[in-house]
Amino acid sequence: MDAYSPTERTRVRRLPQRATYDAETVHGVLDAGLVCTVSFVEDGRPVTIPTAYARVGDALVFHGSAKSRTLLAAAAGAQLCVTVTHLDGLVLARSAFHHSVNYRSVVVFGRAVVVTDPQRKLALLEAFFERLYPGRWSAARRPNEQELRATLVVELPLREVVAKVRTGDPLDDDADMTLPVWAGVIPLRLEAARPEPARNLAAECAPPAVNWPPRGAEIPDHDRMAAS
Amino acid sequence: MDAYSPTERTRVRRLPQRATYDAETVHGVLDAGLVCTVSFVEDGRPVTIPTAYARVGDALVFHGSAKSRTLLAAAAGAQLCVTVTHLDGLVLARSAFHHSVNYRSVVVFGRAVVVTDPQRKLALLEAFFERLYPGRWSAARRPNEQELRATLVVELPLREVVAKVRTGDPLDDDADMTLPVWAGVIPLRLEAARPEPARNLAAECAPPAVNWPPRGAEIPDHDRMAAS
Repeated sequence: MDAYSPTERTRVRRLPQRATYDAETVHGVLDAGLVCTVSFVEDGRPVTIPTAYARVGDALVFHGSAKSRTLLAAAAGAQLCVTVTHLDGLVLARSAFHHSVNYRSVVVFGRAVVVTDPQRKLALLEAFFERLYPGRWSAARRPNEQELRATLVVELPLREVVAKVRTGDPLDDDADMTLPVWAGVIPLRLEAARPEPARNLAAECAPPAVNWPPRGAEIPDHDRMAAS
Repeated sequence: MDAYSPTERTRVRRLPQRATYDAETVHGVLDAGLVCTVSFVEDGRPVTIPTAYARVGDALVFHGSAKSRTLLAAAAGAQLCVTVTHLDGLVLARSAFHHSVNYRSVVVFGRAVVVTDPQRKLALLEAFFERLYPGRWSAARRPNEQELRATLVVELPLREVVAKVRTGDPLDDDADMTLPVWAGVIPLRLEAARPEPARNLAAECAPPAVNWPPRGAEIPDHDRMAAS
């Protein structure tokens, strides 16, 4: 697929030139983040909860406790709105009015479904896990039956989706261009620091490689059939 | 005020030991961020939009175009849910199941009100502005009448509020503690880089000081009466 189709809900009314439905852009924004917000309606009011996610193919995957309020709402078929936002910079203009921020964001609308097939559930968990913690699925103890039962995995198909992106310099009014005011961008980026071992860690354990920034998730080869 | 009172909506059911209503903690999480999500209900469905914010006293302040869908919903008195999230680290445990993330988040429920008093509107805009772009209110051209008219300022009182925080080491099962698996935290932090001048910037303009990480907003002294 090259692009998502705009809908009434994903049509951007303010600054539509910043909106895109291009699948590569949408996927790039999603794959660059680790935490999203999931919103649903409860008693007529919005409830929004931050949570970790991964894009696997053309769906967002979430997992968590089978008692989680958000996952239970998602599992029950509630209408969801998911957002991912990267704050990329502070945009300093010559006028206060044209100050802005550079960002990449994605908004997804839709209903999620629970992943019930055990093989597919495990494959999605592995894909999710390897994206957040590269190399750890093989290093750490795998989930046992009890842990898998306590874990709910849901996926939200990417259908109603829009990305909104602002990049580059401030856009000042022509009349302000000669003002003696610095204009430009202060870039911001989420950075990873050196791993800090747990206080009770045995001395012989080698620290993990830090794979940063995040990359996209991949269904493991050995489960590609199950998850497709 | 020392603490917010829990309500049915802000009572955390999963991992309640991570929840706090302590005002200092809530304010600290809010003041450390620049972008939140604002959710409202439209046609029975959740809509969530990322936007910049500032905490000023005991309210969150938003501003933007008087045509913004989110601000118009807020101005119309819609029930809102606002979240701020900081991703502080990846938590690597000895078992896959106990992998986690360190984070600080705040969730706010309530209705916003439009700031109509011109003097208070300007004071809140200045406080908002100086938090996002320290030093720039005096450096840049101030908003003119037309720009102020095009700008809607709303504030959301902090009443129904909860912070949720996870810090520190992974919590592994006792039986896993002797596994030869590295455990600990990969810290993550949003960092500012060196300012990048606009391509069309006149050579004599000195770059701004970078005040990072963000601090809390303050009502300007000269407007303290108007804004209180």
